[in-house]
Amino acid sequence: MSDANLSSQTEKETGRIEAFSDGVYAIAITLLVLELKVPHSPSGALLRSALVEQWPSYVAFLVSFLTIGIMWINHHRLFTLIRRSDDGLLVLNGLQLLTVTVVPFPTALVAAYIGHDGGRLAAAIYTGWSLVIGAAYNLLWRYAASPSRRLLRVPPDDPSVLSIQAQYRFGPLFYGVAFALAFVSPELAIGLCGALAIYYAIPPKAPPKR
Amino acid sequence: MSDANLSSQTEKETGRIEAFSDGVYAIAITLLVLELKVPHSPSGALLRSALVEQWPSYVAFLVSFLTIGIMWINHHRLFTLIRRSDDGLLVLNGLQLLTVTVVPFPTALVAAYIGHDGGRLAAAIYTGWSLVIGAAYNLLWRYAASPSRRLLRVPPDDPSVLSIQAQYRFGPLFYGVAFALAFVSPELAIGLCGALAIYYAIPPKAPPKR
Amino acid sequence: MSDANLSSQTEKETGRIEAFSDGVYAIAITLLVLELKVPHSPSGALLRSALVEQWPSYVAFLVSFLTIGIMWINHHRLFTLIRRSDDGLLVLNGLQLLTVTVVPFPTALVAAYIGHDGGRLAAAIYTGWSLVIGAAYNLLWRYAASPSRRLLRVPPDDPSVLSIQAQYRFGPLFYGVAFALAFVSPELAIGLCGALAIYYAIPPKAPPKR
Amino acid sequence: MSDANLSSQTEKETGRIEAFSDGVYAIAITLLVLELKVPHSPSGALLRSALVEQWPSYVAFLVSFLTIGIMWINHHRLFTLIRRSDDGLLVLNGLQLLTVTVVPFPTALVAAYIGHDGGRLAAAIYTGWSLVIGAAYNLLWRYAASPSRRLLRVPPDDPSVLSIQAQYRFGPLFYGVAFALAFVSPELAIGLCGALAIYYAIPPKAPPKR
Repeated sequence: MSDANLSSQTEKETGRIEAFSDGVYAIAITLLVLELKVPHSPSGALLRSALVEQWPSYVAFLVSFLTIGIMWINHHRLFTLIRRSDDGLLVLNGLQLLTVTVVPFPTALVAAYIGHDGGRLAAAIYTGWSLVIGAAYNLLWRYAASPSRRLLRVPPDDPSVLSIQAQYRFGPLFYGVAFALAFVSPELAIGLCGALAIYYAIPPKAPPKR
Repeated sequence: MSDANLSSQTEKETGRIEAFSDGVYAIAITLLVLELKVPHSPSGALLRSALVEQWPSYVAFLVSFLTIGIMWINHHRLFTLIRRSDDGLLVLNGLQLLTVTVVPFPTALVAAYIGHDGGRLAAAIYTGWSLVIGAAYNLLWRYAASPSRRLLRVPPDDPSVLSIQAQYRFGPLFYGVAFALAFVSPELAIGLCGALAIYYAIPPKAPPKR
Repeated sequence: MSDANLSSQTEKETGRIEAFSDGVYAIAITLLVLELKVPHSPSGALLRSALVEQWPSYVAFLVSFLTIGIMWINHHRLFTLIRRSDDGLLVLNGLQLLTVTVVPFPTALVAAYIGHDGGRLAAAIYTGWSLVIGAAYNLLWRYAASPSRRLLRVPPDDPSVLSIQAQYRFGPLFYGVAFALAFVSPELAIGLCGALAIYYAIPPKAPPKR
Repeated sequence: MSDANLSSQTEKETGRIEAFSDGVYAIAITLLVLELKVPHSPSGALLRSALVEQWPSYVAFLVSFLTIGIMWINHHRLFTLIRRSDDGLLVLNGLQLLTVTVVPFPTALVAAYIGHDGGRLAAAIYTGWSLVIGAAYNLLWRYAASPSRRLLRVPPDDPSVLSIQAQYRFGPLFYGVAFALAFVSPELAIGLCGALAIYYAIPPKAPPKR
């Protein structure tokens, strides 16, 4: 195979990983709506209060939508920098997708139990899982950014790399706080997760040159 | 990075936004079918009347299919004109996808409650949500078309841009009428939403050159 | 815009229609599995007979999988010949996708009612819908193949075009027979739909040059 | 058509098969989460034990996620080697997708019945289906690798081809053992399936040159 062929082959490969990942993100984010249940109120006249009562469903939907959406944006930013794939990247990307596809489950738990007896446990599972998602993303990022593997398009001390690393440094700490908060106030813990998702949507200070 | 690389990189980026958006649209439009329920009639002999009775499900399915389909066509038209993406566009595109993924929920509400006590509320939520979808699309479009950002391939006074703007000018008004109508006749309000979806499927008078 | 740009733009457009359609086909075909229900038998010991009893679910799943899969292959063959898109093609393609996304509903009807009182009605709806799918595909094909529109890459009397037309000529008749058969033997009618899906998987005699 | 056009046409074709397959894999793998049910415990206080009790759901989810993910990686590796498609490949690829989309069903069976009376039957269906998936993949691979069809980019005795063949040689045997084991210990049988998925994630010893 000529060099040009090899290069086009490699491009195709990262392209297909991105396409598969995009598919998983798109489906996981769209399946969330299935957790918004139509209330089976005995009388339609009570529909309004039944809809109001299930407000935790809407909050959980929104926070999870933000979380998956932001994970996608970050995945997108990461793969903008990635030049080629290898088997380790494939496996770590798979691990990250695993953590993302699970999101509808803790979301449904929070929607069903917040404000009830199991609310703290539900919020602890939700925030704990957010911690796991962040950890999987960090693994993927560190693997890709490792200088010895040369998977990135840019040198490892490029400002775009350093600024992403700075932004993620405190991720585990922030989500750890949300996890601890779940045992005190489930509502605040979920709210913090939403705020963190918005924070991570902000591009790093010195964004990758485009 | 050379200019050629930058340009190909930018192309790849809008390409991936389109791919992710296409995924979300495709899933949201296909999930609608899950709201068509098989009647659990005690006797199979009653299947016919049970199927006829759930006609609001079919209407709601059809109107929502049209709405999401037309949103996709318009998204498609918009991105035909977009040359490059930035962070604001990413966020506003995400907001638009959020409004689209929610559609199966008001659809299920209408299917379950129209013709019953909660019908007006269900229709008001449905038409009100259509208003929100339109608003999110307008935000996306105005951001992309803003002359200072230079995200479009064409100048801001290009006929293709002006004709799209003319078509969307009355969107909020039309959907506002549908919303008001919901409190009078839920059936007519949903019907108006269907008619508007068909209207927005018609290409603008001076279509973008292809 | 230069001619080269226009051509690449046009390519991108049909590309995005194909991508969106592929998404819808892929989701519709994968959602079918949700109709395979885990039996809630009171005792696990009865699992075997409960699984055997729901054989119509498996048959319906398989026939619908074949039907959607074959529609995708034909859509794929059609778009291999299409050079550029226009608004009418976009609308007719949307109509075709509408007919395909609905498939899980008649499939669930057949799975639930065949062998019971409503079996004939369920089979009539299933085969009748197959007729509608075929009609929508024919519309799409005729529109694309119309000589005046010049949407195809090949002349309208190309062998690849003529052979596809020959294959589809009897489609409505075959599915009409299946529809009539539903009122006599629902099982045979569904079986005929499966056989027709396999028939349409066979490439036309003088296949398009590749 | 010129040779260059033909070649780009062919590339587009395998591209679209990959895109459709990626969609099906992505959806099947993401739908698995729907089998993780929120326990409807009478009192929220019992949520913890209800969540612990449904551990087979989590194991089944994980093993199926691994299985589908690994099938995707292998599909990806295979299509990296495939140069062009033909009708037989299209049909065998469809067969492979059929086996993959069904996975949520045996997964749900195992989640519901392991540890109960129907556990052995559920595990036998699960492992038996894994055997079927492997057989379908083998068929696809052998068809593609057949020297007379010239579908691969590389000669049939290329190290990349030989090493893949060596890895798959014992697949049917391994999954046959898992199937037999299901009648002795359903838990061990499912565990073996998980271990095999991890084994098949390991790239073949002499990986395809990239």
